[in-house]
Amino acid sequence: MSTIPDIGEEQRQREEELTERVIRSFDSCADPRLRRVLAGLVRHLHAFIRDVRLTEEEWNRAIAFLREAGDITDDHRQEFILLSDVLGASMQTVAVNNEAYADATEATVFGPFFVEGSPEIAIGGDMSFGATGEPCWVEGTVTDTDGNPVPGALIEVWEADEDGLYDVQYDDERTAARAHLFSDDAGRYAFWGITPTPYPIPYDGPVGRMLDAVGRSPYRASHLHFLVDRAGYRRLVTHIFVAGDELLDSDSVFGVKESLVKEFEPQPAGTPTPDGRDVSGAWSRVRFDIVLAPEAALRR
Amino acid sequence: MSTIPDIGEEQRQREEELTERVIRSFDSCADPRLRRVLAGLVRHLHAFIRDVRLTEEEWNRAIAFLREAGDITDDHRQEFILLSDVLGASMQTVAVNNEAYADATEATVFGPFFVEGSPEIAIGGDMSFGATGEPCWVEGTVTDTDGNPVPGALIEVWEADEDGLYDVQYDDERTAARAHLFSDDAGRYAFWGITPTPYPIPYDGPVGRMLDAVGRSPYRASHLHFLVDRAGYRRLVTHIFVAGDELLDSDSVFGVKESLVKEFEPQPAGTPTPDGRDVSGAWSRVRFDIVLAPEAALRR
Ligand SMILES: [Fe+2]
Ligand SMILES: [Fe+2]
Repeated sequence: MSTIPDIGEEQRQREEELTERVIRSFDSCADPRLRRVLAGLVRHLHAFIRDVRLTEEEWNRAIAFLREAGDITDDHRQEFILLSDVLGASMQTVAVNNEAYADATEATVFGPFFVEGSPEIAIGGDMSFGATGEPCWVEGTVTDTDGNPVPGALIEVWEADEDGLYDVQYDDERTAARAHLFSDDAGRYAFWGITPTPYPIPYDGPVGRMLDAVGRSPYRASHLHFLVDRAGYRRLVTHIFVAGDELLDSDSVFGVKESLVKEFEPQPAGTPTPDGRDVSGAWSRVRFDIVLAPEAALRR
Repeated sequence: MSTIPDIGEEQRQREEELTERVIRSFDSCADPRLRRVLAGLVRHLHAFIRDVRLTEEEWNRAIAFLREAGDITDDHRQEFILLSDVLGASMQTVAVNNEAYADATEATVFGPFFVEGSPEIAIGGDMSFGATGEPCWVEGTVTDTDGNPVPGALIEVWEADEDGLYDVQYDDERTAARAHLFSDDAGRYAFWGITPTPYPIPYDGPVGRMLDAVGRSPYRASHLHFLVDRAGYRRLVTHIFVAGDELLDSDSVFGVKESLVKEFEPQPAGTPTPDGRDVSGAWSRVRFDIVLAPEAALRR
């Protein structure tokens, strides 16, 4: 893993000895898990500094970057989450905590836009609450990994409007494009949402400037968020993505997984809707069958 | 280096593939050094997450910690430097950038208390400017690694007063316990300072709470800061420490090096001073001979 350049034996020993000395400073920590996490942090942080031979000027820039991230962070903006996201650290944390289990649906990043206390809708209800965008009929089932229906599963859904904004980014206090519903006795669910469109993560701060410096786009591939929870099953936090979206290979937070890319089938204006709803104009439909892993599956 | 636990081949591949995907996202970065540093950061950050199997709860705590560090940081307080210091990252950066060269004096952490534009004093002058503490006569030579004197070397010195405070931590704008002087034609220097005493790094923020949680003290071993600079030589940033100080083995920022620990010899009240100065009470004296490496030595 390490690629420390050839620095001479005496220097190598000096650097390694420092790392070990710092790790030993946690020896009297009463919490063994905290001790392990901090020891691991020190080991890998030091390996990074040694590996790239970090200059003092680069260290200064890193400190200034963290301060700028702190300065722009408030209750509505969390630059440290964005930083974790664009470095793939959020997604790696998801990977570590959601090991593959049979053919259970894969997880992806939670993102910063979930809000507790969304309105409840009935099956077939509309979660857009006036958020703009092309209507989209979303339907599917919730089952376990043996194919048995999971009734009564909580399904939270949230997404951006066609301008790329979540309701929490609006100037007013409206709730829109977020709701929760429950699967029926056969594990089925359905709702009206909005056909997902791409949006950029906030890029007017240091993370945006970093993306710019390395030639990366802040845009996320179009997606619709799901959180699915039912006692006895592993809580699932995921999105579905839009097949054919040109951003699938360059999602700014590395959230795309092939199994989560779904066909959003375009429906020309006038196409009859599944529930007889009168939709003026084109709409789309997508199927997302959700498979929940057992709660204890592969958890450490 | 890596100690990723046994997680099964499929999961291991999934996690490694994510790391490689994130690293590839920097491929179009026009600055090869920035690309290398960010690729190294991602590699080691992901290895940390995988190694300790970071939980989502722990990730949340890390994000909250960074936000708190940002909240307490301002022009007079830099919590991210403190964080780097107590994790040994500052000292590892010093190690990487100051490879050992012959018997040149070793470097240590710069710290946050240096101020540009200190007053100049003559050789034998007093750098305390009224800061309280036991007087200390500091003397030595500046030479190259062949033992030749280095005349005209800039010597910046700064330290805390006997209450553990630097002047920038005072309520007023006083300058105290900092100055610069120059070595004479024989490379000699001398000044009156203060016998160093221990002080804690600021510990009323998240870094202090972390130290508390792991049972570590915020105290630094007693020290006196030096910055020595002369064209043609590697700039030296270092301290000298006090032999016998009980904090030498537990310096909160890992700055102590054996070669920098010096005998501060106690002088009872009434002992004649080297320059005939009338000191009322006890004082101390210390010798620190400084050896500068050539400028290009081992620099990358
Ligand atoms: Fe999103
Ligand atoms: Fe200091």
